[in-house]
Amino acid sequence: MAKNQTVLEGNVASRDTLRTTPGGVATLHLTLIHQSTQREANAEVAVEVEMNAVAFGELAVEMNGVKAGDSISIKGFLSRKNRFSPMPILHITQFKFS
Amino acid sequence: MAKNQTVLEGNVASRDTLRTTPGGVATLHLTLIHQSTQREANAEVAVEVEMNAVAFGELAVEMNGVKAGDSISIKGFLSRKNRFSPMPILHITQFKFS
Repeated sequence: MAKNQTVLEGNVASRDTLRTTPGGVATLHLTLIHQSTQREANAEVAVEVEMNAVAFGELAVEMNGVKAGDSISIKGFLSRKNRFSPMPILHITQFKFS
Repeated sequence: MAKNQTVLEGNVASRDTLRTTPGGVATLHLTLIHQSTQREANAEVAVEVEMNAVAFGELAVEMNGVKAGDSISIKGFLSRKNRFSPMPILHITQFKFS
């Protein structure tokens, strides 16, 4: 199995309402803004990324308590947004407030 | 320090020539295609993502041996592409052939 794991901590910039797919699965989309300093090529670099993320099922319901501005840490895997868009989106498999 | 760590394994779809920034730092851009099956909301889902990645400095020089089609595993952090584009790109801090 090819590895695909991301841990990202940041502030919730925006969140969508809790939706349900046509198949009946709860879905929550949010955008996380991350800022940090990382070590790269022997230098400290300021890093910023705005990542689209999505949770499904029970986790989506559990994350319905998350508000814009909350600081959270999420763990998950990267996937293309959909058939039509190659934009990477982070699928959340675990989260906690941080 | 806010966490930002990704491990991604896949095949090199394309790679740029080894370049040098105006500041004299070696830079290597590549695109990694990852395919796997992940567990999400109690189901197995087929995942595909095409991720732009970049290495700087000694690591870029070391990765100059990487060819399109090679299977590699990379570790790094996500960052927006640049000031003008919010597209996430994976900055490589470690790599190995897999």
